[in-house]
This record gives sequence, structure tokens and C-alpha cells, in this order.
Amino acid sequence: AVTTIAVIPGDGIGPEVIEPALDVLDALGLGTRTDILDHVNADTYLRTGEALTGSDLDRIRSSEAALLGAVGDPRLGDTSYVRGVLTTLRLELDLYVNYRPARLWHDRLSPLRDPARRAIDCVIVRENTEGLYSGIGGGARTGTPEEIAVDVDLSTRHGVSRVLEFAFSAARRSVCLVDKANAVRNGGQLWQRCWGEAVARHPHIATSHLYVDTAALRLATDPTGFDVIVTNNSYGDILSDLTAALAGGLGVAASANLNPVTGRALFEPVHGSAPDIAGSGTANPFGAILSVALLAEHLGRNEEADAVRRAVAAAVAAGRVTPDLGGPLGTKEVGAAVLAELRRP
Amino acid sequence: AVTTIAVIPGDGIGPEVIEPALDVLDALGLGTRTDILDHVNADTYLRTGEALTGSDLDRIRSSEAALLGAVGDPRLGDTSYVRGVLTTLRLELDLYVNYRPARLWHDRLSPLRDPARRAIDCVIVRENTEGLYSGIGGGARTGTPEEIAVDVDLSTRHGVSRVLEFAFSAARRSVCLVDKANAVRNGGQLWQRCWGEAVARHPHIATSHLYVDTAALRLATDPTGFDVIVTNNSYGDILSDLTAALAGGLGVAASANLNPVTGRALFEPVHGSAPDIAGSGTANPFGAILSVALLAEHLGRNEEADAVRRAVAAAVAAGRVTPDLGGPLGTKEVGAAVLAELRRP
Ligand SMILES: CC(C)[C@H](C(=O)O)[C@@H](O)C(=O)O
Ligand SMILES: CC(C)[C@H](C(=O)O)[C@@H](O)C(=O)O
Repeated sequence: AVTTIAVIPGDGIGPEVIEPALDVLDALGLGTRTDILDHVNADTYLRTGEALTGSDLDRIRSSEAALLGAVGDPRLGDTSYVRGVLTTLRLELDLYVNYRPARLWHDRLSPLRDPARRAIDCVIVRENTEGLYSGIGGGARTGTPEEIAVDVDLSTRHGVSRVLEFAFSAARRSVCLVDKANAVRNGGQLWQRCWGEAVARHPHIATSHLYVDTAALRLATDPTGFDVIVTNNSYGDILSDLTAALAGGLGVAASANLNPVTGRALFEPVHGSAPDIAGSGTANPFGAILSVALLAEHLGRNEEADAVRRAVAAAVAAGRVTPDLGGPLGTKEVGAAVLAELRRP
Repeated sequence: AVTTIAVIPGDGIGPEVIEPALDVLDALGLGTRTDILDHVNADTYLRTGEALTGSDLDRIRSSEAALLGAVGDPRLGDTSYVRGVLTTLRLELDLYVNYRPARLWHDRLSPLRDPARRAIDCVIVRENTEGLYSGIGGGARTGTPEEIAVDVDLSTRHGVSRVLEFAFSAARRSVCLVDKANAVRNGGQLWQRCWGEAVARHPHIATSHLYVDTAALRLATDPTGFDVIVTNNSYGDILSDLTAALAGGLGVAASANLNPVTGRALFEPVHGSAPDIAGSGTANPFGAILSVALLAEHLGRNEEADAVRRAVAAAVAAGRVTPDLGGPLGTKEVGAAVLAELRRP
């Protein structure tokens, strides 16, 4: 059967890392057809004021999954372009889970001093459709000394209980809830109530709870022992960059945006468009390639996903990596190294 | 002249760390009188439902500064007790700056692998009266499947510009603004506008800007190079635990809650009441003692503040530390070691 993957290369290093990622997709022999949306980028936004149209969304909706490189452009500064693409995709496709694994591919990549504390192997399950990303809010008396602005941190039982349920389904050993229920009371209490119910539904999975400040402190000193960490949109954004740092940096971080009910899914490296290195050919393709591993898993091809991860681990072990990981290779060469590992009998 | 310091020992290890802190205060010869509010604790809250009364606030208001140990009690779980004490103090006294220095007292205490990246020496300047701690919000259809809850992330020009101004006044080398203006648009834009104005008012101070996710990643891999980091209440909460981790843990973290306009000030170690070790005599008193150093600075006694910091550094260098720092000593012995250093001619 043919599976259609919508591909948004995007801006900056996005197209550069998508290329080896598509080679890997191809090599897996998943019988995929790609639908390349290469006009979804900053140039289009600058020309038309709209980067992602309704018909783009339709093309993505009629695909089995989507793969995105990166969006963002220095010419656009703090405009709503990036938010307009990423958040629109997440909200319009109701991709309520942002799944961000962090696993140390080689001891050498850990920034931590204590060898016994380096082996991070956890997943941030980030709620992806509400919280401070609700888009609700506004301002008053803008431009005057009395100016105020509000952003609404939204929590719904619908949104919270479904992401908690996913977190339990993804647990290998344990689930840790991270919130700030001691200070942010309304959403905090709703999360706590939904959490109590989810814990009761899964009596055989070990659970724990940390406030977000303590979670950051614990992760930075000893990230081992965490399995699934489930949290809201904003804390998930922050903690997943922290876990990425502990697993070797943004260059190796992959993510899946999922709706486990409808089956819609969007895969993307966690890094941005990195205008500072775009065009130099040195962007690390592992984030994009490991996003393809998550995509393979989503298609039920766990063996292929494992093969991709083994190939990445082998390339890292052999030092066949880009400068951000201390290596001498460029994007294409690293992609070739991964392909060579994949084809090894 | 006699200076009155209001003291709230609080719960758990609070009173245990306040004792050596008061000894240090005494040894500094600041001519201080203490007004001990030892009824502000969980027992009082459990008995009366109110831990901090209007008359307590009056006593604090008529003091030159306040020193707090820690509040929190396992019997009270997620009730509003801790928030009721800490947030009430911060809001009622309008202590709009939460000043949290993070400095590595000894190379041995760093969790980082790369020796060149260990020397953290920065300050988190956290807005302390608004953001997600506004207390504004509520819920609807509570207890039903349609339940929703909202918490309002509040930003005002009044609140934001005054904390930015303080950040610039506290800078030794540079100020870095941390926000999430690319996703949380309303408050983000207000912060960005106030930031533009503050930067223009201080043309000789180096500045930079990071999104909060990137800031967490950068701090975790290389915290050197940061000086003042200014951010909102919630990101300040999270990042200051992260910087504390990088500087040796919560045991050494001190903080000042300040209103630089009225001169009101509250000093507290960043750690909580730590019920797990309360009563064991092993709590680290450095957080409380270094809070006294900040208090001395507040009273204009910079020399005394430096003497306290030198004494702590000497105690750390000599290994005269509690178990959390890998040492063999108890709270009282560490306190005595600091006093001995202070009295050395
Ligand atoms: C206990 C809690 C409400 C408090 C806060 O979040 O402000 C604490 O974490 C702190 O940082 O002082
Ligand atoms: C670019 C930004 C809006 C986005 C987010 O905060 O979600 C990014 O940081 C991410 O984590 O995917």
C-alpha cells in the first residue's frame, strides 16, 4: 500500500536536513509517496502574508503523516509567521500530544560531570493545544503608561485528560506529572484532579509529581530515572529544551505532534531554522532523521524505527557527526553515514 | 542606630537554618534588633486558617527588612498555605523584584563536565508581583466533563518597566531578557516594547534576548557569560532553580524580594521547608546565611556582605559543609565554621 507523507522543508537549514531525512525514509522501503509543500516558507509569507493556506492544510489532512524541517526567518523578527505555521498546524490538526524523547546516544555527548548521571532516556509528553498557547488574551491602553496585557493559560478537562491518558499509554516504567499547582491554582487544580483519575485508571504504572521549578533542578543534576514526564504546553516547551541539552543538544532532538484518536501526525526536529549556519552545509541531520524514526513507529513499523536509531547510534559512536557534536562532517556526509549503516546487512 | 529585622522562622528546616543566620547577623554588628514572628507557620494555619494576619504584616512593615526561613508542611498538601504566606508577602509589600544570585562557590560543586563552563556567576531578576502569579482566573463547569479553568498571565507597563529598570541598575556587565514573545504574544509584545525603551535608556550596558526554552538549554550547557537575566514571574521561578542547580544546589541559593522604591525587603533562602530532613540537624544553612549577606547589602553594608560571602567560600573550600554538598557536618557546625571565619582577624 502506498502511504503519502506531506513534507514541509521550510526555511534555513530546514530543507538541508529534510534531504537526508527523505533519503532515510526512502531507504526504509515503507512504500511512501511524498507530497512536497516547498512553498510553505518565509518567502511566501513575505509575498502573500500567508504561509500556510487552507489548501495546504487539506493536502496535509489527506496524507498519512507530515514531516517538517524548520520554519523561521531573520527578516521576519518577532512577527506571527513561525507561530502562524507551527501553532496553526498543531491547533488545526488538533495534534494534542507533543512527544519529545531525549536519549543519550553516546556518553561523550553528555554535559554532566557525574558518569552515573549521564544516561538520560526519557520522553517529555507536552500538551500541545492549550495552556499559554491558547491564543486567548489581549491588551488595553496599549502605548500608554497604564498599558496592560493578558494571556490566558487555558486548561480543559478534555485537553488535560486526553494528554494524561496518552502519557500513561507511552510509559515504559513511570509517569511524572509536572505542574505548578502550588501557585497557578485554577489550571493546577484541574490538572491535579484529572491526574488523580488517570493514576487510578493505571494502578500498575509508577507515578510521581514535581513542581516545574524542582523538575528543572532535578533534570539538570540527575536526569536518570525519569521515564515519561507529562506537562503543559509552556513547561513542556522549556523542559524539552533542557532534556535536549542533556541528551547532546538540539541537533539530536526529534519530536512528534500527534492526535492518537484521529491518527493525524506531524514530525519535526526540535531545532529551528538556524539562519546563522544555514547554507554552510553543517546542519546536524539527526533531529530530522530521528523524526523519521518516530514517523516509522507511527506507521506501525517499529523494526524500521529501531534500525534508524541503531544507525544513528553507530554513526555517533564512529564520530561520523557534524561540528555541533564535535565532529568533522557535513550534513550530507552524516546522512550518507546513516544510510550506509542502514544498508549494512 | 538600631535597625529592626522581622524574622519568620516558619516550618520544617526554616527555624533550623534561621538560627545560624541570626548568629551571623549578630556577628556583623549591624546594630540590629529582631522581631521574631514565630507563630507564622503551619500549626497556626491549621488552627486558625490564617497564617499571616494583618497585624503580622504591620510588624513587618514597621521593620527595616524581613528574614524568612521556609514555609510548607506535608500535612497541608496542595492547600493555599504556602502561597498564602509567600505570595501575600510579595504582593502586599509590593516586592516587585525577586533577586536570585547564582555563583559557584567552589569548582567541586558544579554538575557540569566541562571545567571551562562551570563558573556560573549570574543573577536572575524575577518579576515578583504579576505574570501567572496574578491570582486572576477561575473555572467553569467544575467537576463535569466540560470543565475548564483559566489563569491569567498578567503584564503591565508599570510592573514590567520597573523590574527592567532594576535589572539594568543591577548589571555589572550585561542584561539578558528572557521571554516567549514568539508564542505568548500579548504580554510578550508589552515586555518587548518596555525592553526597547529600557535598552535605549542604558546605551552603555550590553544586552541580549533569548526565548525561555533556548535560555534553559544554554544555561544547562554553558551558564558562563550570563550576568543579569531578567524575566517574568514564572520563567524566573523555573530558571532560578536551574541556576541554583548549576551553582551547587538549593542549599546554597539565597534570594531577596525587594521594592527598590519604598525600600521594603524580604530575604529568604530559595529552598523550602524540606520535611524529609527537618529535625535531622543536617539542613544546609548557607542559603539562609547568604540571604543575610543580601540583607546586609540592602542596609548599605557591602563590606559586611562581602565578609559573609568570603566566610562561606572559605567554609566550602575547607569542606566544612553539610551532606547535600558532600560534607560531614551538621547545620550548627557549619554555622560555627562560618562564624569562626567571620571572626578571623
Ligand atoms: C512555593 C512557591 C509558590 C514559590 C514560587 O513559585 O514563587 C517558590 O517556588 C519560590 O520560587 O519562591
Ligand atoms: C517556535 C516556538 C513557537 C515553538 C514553541 O514554543 O512551541 C518551539 O519552541 C517549539 O518548541 O516547537
